[in-house]
Amino acid sequence: MIGLFDSGIGGLTVVRALRRLRPEVDLIYFGDTARTPYGNKSAKVVEQYGLEAAKFLLDKGATALVVACNTVSAVGVEAIKKTWPKVPVFEVISPVADKIISGHFKKVGIMGTRATINSQAYQKRLTGSGIKVTAEPAPLLVPLVEENYINKPATKRIVKSYLSPFKQAQVEVLVLACTHYPLLKKIIRSRLSKKIKIFDPADETARAVVAWLNNNPQEAVRINSRRSHYFVSDLTPHFQKVAEQWLGQKINLEKVGILN
Amino acid sequence: MIGLFDSGIGGLTVVRALRRLRPEVDLIYFGDTARTPYGNKSAKVVEQYGLEAAKFLLDKGATALVVACNTVSAVGVEAIKKTWPKVPVFEVISPVADKIISGHFKKVGIMGTRATINSQAYQKRLTGSGIKVTAEPAPLLVPLVEENYINKPATKRIVKSYLSPFKQAQVEVLVLACTHYPLLKKIIRSRLSKKIKIFDPADETARAVVAWLNNNPQEAVRINSRRSHYFVSDLTPHFQKVAEQWLGQKINLEKVGILN
Repeated sequence: MIGLFDSGIGGLTVVRALRRLRPEVDLIYFGDTARTPYGNKSAKVVEQYGLEAAKFLLDKGATALVVACNTVSAVGVEAIKKTWPKVPVFEVISPVADKIISGHFKKVGIMGTRATINSQAYQKRLTGSGIKVTAEPAPLLVPLVEENYINKPATKRIVKSYLSPFKQAQVEVLVLACTHYPLLKKIIRSRLSKKIKIFDPADETARAVVAWLNNNPQEAVRINSRRSHYFVSDLTPHFQKVAEQWLGQKINLEKVGILN
Repeated sequence: MIGLFDSGIGGLTVVRALRRLRPEVDLIYFGDTARTPYGNKSAKVVEQYGLEAAKFLLDKGATALVVACNTVSAVGVEAIKKTWPKVPVFEVISPVADKIISGHFKKVGIMGTRATINSQAYQKRLTGSGIKVTAEPAPLLVPLVEENYINKPATKRIVKSYLSPFKQAQVEVLVLACTHYPLLKKIIRSRLSKKIKIFDPADETARAVVAWLNNNPQEAVRINSRRSHYFVSDLTPHFQKVAEQWLGQKINLEKVGILN
């Protein structure tokens, strides 16, 4: 059974992308809403949170992990792989990096959290490929999306200002390297030249997971989707509302308390 | 020795107000940067975090506590007082509520985090006083301030939109019920009628603590201020920078790891 986790509810966008491709696949999700967000925290703290989330999902019966969080994917995956070497671990960076390399792009923009950008995770995966990477943090987009402050003039201004370095660098591809950013895709799209491609790691990650499921059909427990479980470390009416908006359906969030 | 804590570095505004009145007083501070922010989290989780921070400071030698966080003041103080009934506990809500009552104001606005507003902490303290309270959350102001996104047109727009219900209610006083908001005071001031008073809980709280110190001089250990200690659960260059901006001086932040 596949276990996915994120710092909060943003990782539900990966669940949604996965469900679109394989609606019948059973899964468990953990969102660390009691300690969200991770994006401005240090690599060491994020790594520890990632290990705790992975342990929680494995204890609940997950046999494969999807790190549905760019920040943990950037700084915490190696620790998870080292701790559980036999568990298949997917993350949201490599599938996009592979697509960039196979697409022969030369100038790529990465917009992410401060922790993701500081980690240079994308640069490391694209190194030696001759690709020029422009990586910039866009930290305000997370709270703007969480507040559903989407179609507002203030948000459009902030997006415009965050896009400016990517325009200057004349990128061919912009990676929305945080689960929250695709919810602003329409605004981002309208402010970029049509020639610039926008990559959403959720889509690429879902495709990578489905390719693996096709080769490992025993992992795709074909049962009633009501068997899927969605756990959070904290629950408020606001989290509940945003989760349903993002997943596009009603969802039963089960509160499990603070991990440690 | 006085111990102060906050969800992050915002509580340093209370330290600053206290230092302005009594620069020689020794103190210890704890900022829970590994789990910040608290404002959108549930009352139960915030209460638990408050208990852990209080225990940390008491273990470090604090003999009185200042809850320098509006959200914990709103939902977590009773649990702290119940757990340590002999420890004097100050919080940032009562001093402002007292000032409102003694000022005979009739229409008051409270702008705070979602958790503070939902708790109705101000309404409860002002109940029976005939005061009409307009309480509204302004969650985006926390990340805007933390990103130092202060003098920007987008921020001015967002502030204007958050002020609108208080203008409609014709409040006489607006309480900036989150440690972060006073950093936007200039923008808020310029968008409100001059007749409307703006109350900053940091100032009122510092005055309450100083009044108590005057009656308990043995608590104000008069020593070199280098003996003050500032602890955080996580440390990044960004936290360091913002902390020094807010405190208005160089500061040595000591990382102690995640509490639990």
